[in-house]
Amino acid sequence: MAMNEEWLDPAAVKSRLEKDLQELTDKGNAYDKKQWQAMNYSLMAGGKRIRPVLTVWTGLSLGADADELFPFAEALEMIHTYSLIHDDLPAMDNDDYRRGRLTNHKVFGEAAAILAGDGLLTYAFEVCGQAMEEAAAGGQTELLKRQARAVSFLAQMAGPSGMVSGQMVDLESEGRTIGLDELTYMEISKTSRLLEAALVMGGCLAGAGPEQIQSLEEAGEKLGLAFQIQDDILDVTGDEKELGKPTGSDEKEKKSTFVSLYGLEKARKEAVKDTEEALARLAFLEGSYGRAVRDLVKSLVDRRK
Amino acid sequence: MAMNEEWLDPAAVKSRLEKDLQELTDKGNAYDKKQWQAMNYSLMAGGKRIRPVLTVWTGLSLGADADELFPFAEALEMIHTYSLIHDDLPAMDNDDYRRGRLTNHKVFGEAAAILAGDGLLTYAFEVCGQAMEEAAAGGQTELLKRQARAVSFLAQMAGPSGMVSGQMVDLESEGRTIGLDELTYMEISKTSRLLEAALVMGGCLAGAGPEQIQSLEEAGEKLGLAFQIQDDILDVTGDEKELGKPTGSDEKEKKSTFVSLYGLEKARKEAVKDTEEALARLAFLEGSYGRAVRDLVKSLVDRRK
Repeated sequence: MAMNEEWLDPAAVKSRLEKDLQELTDKGNAYDKKQWQAMNYSLMAGGKRIRPVLTVWTGLSLGADADELFPFAEALEMIHTYSLIHDDLPAMDNDDYRRGRLTNHKVFGEAAAILAGDGLLTYAFEVCGQAMEEAAAGGQTELLKRQARAVSFLAQMAGPSGMVSGQMVDLESEGRTIGLDELTYMEISKTSRLLEAALVMGGCLAGAGPEQIQSLEEAGEKLGLAFQIQDDILDVTGDEKELGKPTGSDEKEKKSTFVSLYGLEKARKEAVKDTEEALARLAFLEGSYGRAVRDLVKSLVDRRK
Repeated sequence: MAMNEEWLDPAAVKSRLEKDLQELTDKGNAYDKKQWQAMNYSLMAGGKRIRPVLTVWTGLSLGADADELFPFAEALEMIHTYSLIHDDLPAMDNDDYRRGRLTNHKVFGEAAAILAGDGLLTYAFEVCGQAMEEAAAGGQTELLKRQARAVSFLAQMAGPSGMVSGQMVDLESEGRTIGLDELTYMEISKTSRLLEAALVMGGCLAGAGPEQIQSLEEAGEKLGLAFQIQDDILDVTGDEKELGKPTGSDEKEKKSTFVSLYGLEKARKEAVKDTEEALARLAFLEGSYGRAVRDLVKSLVDRRK
């Protein structure tokens, strides 16, 4: 299949994504300006945009249209961003900084940060809804069916059986040691679910069949685990300067991690195994976009920061 | 049109709704039980279930199928409930009681209440998504199109251009007097938007045309205003015993209300006018369900508590 390679450079995806996100939050009236500013502040705070890039590349490798992928990729980034805003709140992790910038509630206040998160979460579904309404109005019923599967999966992964569940388990695990089963459940919920959404939405929007969707789902789960194990390893072995944050914090806080439960050597082996399993499940993605997805997966796990 | 009158008794709608909501939150595993309990606690805290009843009755009066209406009515009730949980938080209104029961964060803690709200908001779209996925899988493309319009409208009304915007304006208006334009914008956003969603989703799911949808939207806006004006009037003239809460709180807190801005007499006239306008826009709803919608609207504004 001859493919448009316009989006192979991640910077191209990021640039389109950020332009759209900027436009989507360049709104507001005389009364609610602050809400849009707070949403925009966290949405435009940078980051690698891993999830939307995965959605776009996966979808393109399976033959979807870029214009049909971006709204869902943007919705996913909004959901990721809302989760960071709420996670940083005083009642949750109480963080003052994220990526070197003040957290949302430090700039806009706690109440506004709660609302900015609520706003972004709802807006994500508004953006998907808008795309679906356009497909419905244009009589594109095949596209509409694909979108319905994508948005349904997104909500499942983000919601109380997905990411939110992991947040709750994280909360409940504070101050006590947890076992491997609970830690694995927590990290799959907190980290894997949105990665699954990223890959599976790309698949849904391209009209992938049930077996392909299942492969993408499993790949996302494994990728999230490998990513998190690597995170735990770096907290022990990483270079503080390279990481840009202090190491050893997990041990100091007596947090159960994959390193504390597996030991360093076994943790490394598990990360390699999970990465290989993720890559195997992504092997069916053809062409240069398929290769790009796998290279990104490798880079996420091989990272030193 | 001969109609099934099974749902004409609001208690029948409430009973089905609450059975479904109970089942939808009777979930969880060894690790995240508390999240589902927190969601269930607020969802099952009673209340008049006005919004879902309006969705079901409006849809039935226009010929929709009850089974197709309930998931969307339930999603709406979840969104209404999440908004109350977040509104009661210490960083927001800091309320200890709602409807005579402890608020969510007083029972489960602040962090869990934030997550219970996030969970309910996302779950609402999961429930809609599930219904859409089923329609897509069953090849019911006409239904799917209607659902896409309904969910898109729901997200718009609940999100940063709808209810969340009103919450932010409310926050920003604390401790200062505001004018009639700002008060009207705030109350339409906070109260009317979800009532519009209730009526319009019923219309969408029944396949109503653009003119009918517009009438339903306008009716919801007017109903919300009339409801809020009546609220402000009762805070001045109501009977504390009947209301079950102290009166005069608006004046004590120096809040701008429709009564403080209009005066009592004009406020009464405005409430009557808005109600009449809402009823006029609902006149096209035929049969006993149409009459039931209008009777409910009247009772909401004529209330003494």
